[in-house]
Amino acid sequence: MKIGLIGLGKMGYNLALNMMDHKHEVVAFDLDKKAVERLENEGAIGASSISDMLSKLDSPKIVWLMVPHGKPVSNLIDQIRPELSKGDIIIEAGNSMYKDSIEHAAELSTDGIYFFDVGTSGGMEGARHGACYMIGGDPDVFKTIEPIFRDTAVPNGYVYTGRAGSGHFAKMVHNGVEYGMMAAIGEGFEVLEKSPFDYDFAEIARCWSNGSVIRGWLMELTEAAFRADPRLEQIKGVIHSSGEGQWTVQEALDLRAATPIIALSLLMRYRSEETDTFNGKVQAALRNQFGGHAVEKA
Amino acid sequence: MKIGLIGLGKMGYNLALNMMDHKHEVVAFDLDKKAVERLENEGAIGASSISDMLSKLDSPKIVWLMVPHGKPVSNLIDQIRPELSKGDIIIEAGNSMYKDSIEHAAELSTDGIYFFDVGTSGGMEGARHGACYMIGGDPDVFKTIEPIFRDTAVPNGYVYTGRAGSGHFAKMVHNGVEYGMMAAIGEGFEVLEKSPFDYDFAEIARCWSNGSVIRGWLMELTEAAFRADPRLEQIKGVIHSSGEGQWTVQEALDLRAATPIIALSLLMRYRSEETDTFNGKVQAALRNQFGGHAVEKA
Repeated sequence: MKIGLIGLGKMGYNLALNMMDHKHEVVAFDLDKKAVERLENEGAIGASSISDMLSKLDSPKIVWLMVPHGKPVSNLIDQIRPELSKGDIIIEAGNSMYKDSIEHAAELSTDGIYFFDVGTSGGMEGARHGACYMIGGDPDVFKTIEPIFRDTAVPNGYVYTGRAGSGHFAKMVHNGVEYGMMAAIGEGFEVLEKSPFDYDFAEIARCWSNGSVIRGWLMELTEAAFRADPRLEQIKGVIHSSGEGQWTVQEALDLRAATPIIALSLLMRYRSEETDTFNGKVQAALRNQFGGHAVEKA
Repeated sequence: MKIGLIGLGKMGYNLALNMMDHKHEVVAFDLDKKAVERLENEGAIGASSISDMLSKLDSPKIVWLMVPHGKPVSNLIDQIRPELSKGDIIIEAGNSMYKDSIEHAAELSTDGIYFFDVGTSGGMEGARHGACYMIGGDPDVFKTIEPIFRDTAVPNGYVYTGRAGSGHFAKMVHNGVEYGMMAAIGEGFEVLEKSPFDYDFAEIARCWSNGSVIRGWLMELTEAAFRADPRLEQIKGVIHSSGEGQWTVQEALDLRAATPIIALSLLMRYRSEETDTFNGKVQAALRNQFGGHAVEKA
């Protein structure tokens, strides 16, 4: 198929290569002209502007957005909407908040434009050689664009999740689960590290990646990290987050879904971002107040 | 090699078949004579008693214990110890507490008997077709028995972890990580189930098993569970535990290792075992006391 791709960052660029591997035509645009040129050298059709990109597509036009969530997505949709016609399709494959996607779908539907919200997992490697997609939007129109997903996903690596919003919601929850799983893995190695034994962490992770109950891609990545730096001495234990875990917890609160492990994983990430805490000062002060327990001076 | 195997339960029986697939000779004993007969029909050498089993082994004798941890393991070791000689080897592959294993190794070493503590993961399927082993004990003697582990594990699925105790310690932590990962997966599907969308959970788990960041065996088992019972209506959400998670948390406390996710996963399992809690009654009563908030009658 012929796809207009906007956003040639780490994910978009690799996805374009993946699409072209499977004989799809990519008309590519990015504000970074160098990225467009680089992709042209790989066989893509370059576009100098969004209008130029749209003019190079067949009807119904299929536009794939791979840009950061929030304003960039909304602004881009506002910009292309007037240039699209009834029956055209926008595929929004960033890590967007599902409520934004429900809104985008509703707005665009007034013009007869179809909107698909696509949660994409698997990282850069996945974008390049086989991603994992959760896809919300119109079920009939989905069938017409399904080949793109089938071709660029790993085998069995995409799912149609239902109406607009359901794709990004599922991806949000996926990331919440990821937070919890990562916290459990991290804590396990914390115990091994403090244990009386002298473990080779890469070897443990290698063993756990083969035949154990907790085997999986995260454990394989754990092995790779320990191979590169056996005791992770080059890395600080600060765990940033980019929003989806927080959204999962916020949604869980709204839904009254008891999710203490995911919530605590998120809060422990926040804790990791601080070297000292006001909370800690308050509690140290209280121990001193009532029990005369020593405080550590700042 | 020729191995004396004591304990033909779900794990031991499957492991025996696995060993024999790889041309090891198994001299099998279990209190359940039917299990011994069944395994004889599969090609094992049956034994009518522990002494009979030991008499059928070559020196140095290799005895593999696959019985429940605690008393059964300790009693069995006490029973076979007088019949073993310097240089003989006991492989204890149950889910034992690592401190027990350290003790067993120390006791047996006074007689010159080698003790290996082996954490085994992968369930029955693993025992049958390829397990995952974490092995503690003497490093030189390990090399002489390594073929048994290499042959009955999945490729790359065993690791020598160091001195006695380190194998069961690593398996204990493995199970702690498993508790946290399972809690994260369970909570994720809790959010999906309470969401405004109508997800096919088996399809979501199938997608997440292919190409996603959280792919792994637990997610594949999640898919299988939903295939068998799409909304798990046949199952109560009671999560029992068999000790290793509790030990992980107890060890983490002793080591002052901050492991809130694993600890909370364990506590939430305990919560799942109760339909109502005294804690809940106390808090409901307090809300009523200070705010006049309604309580639900027992």
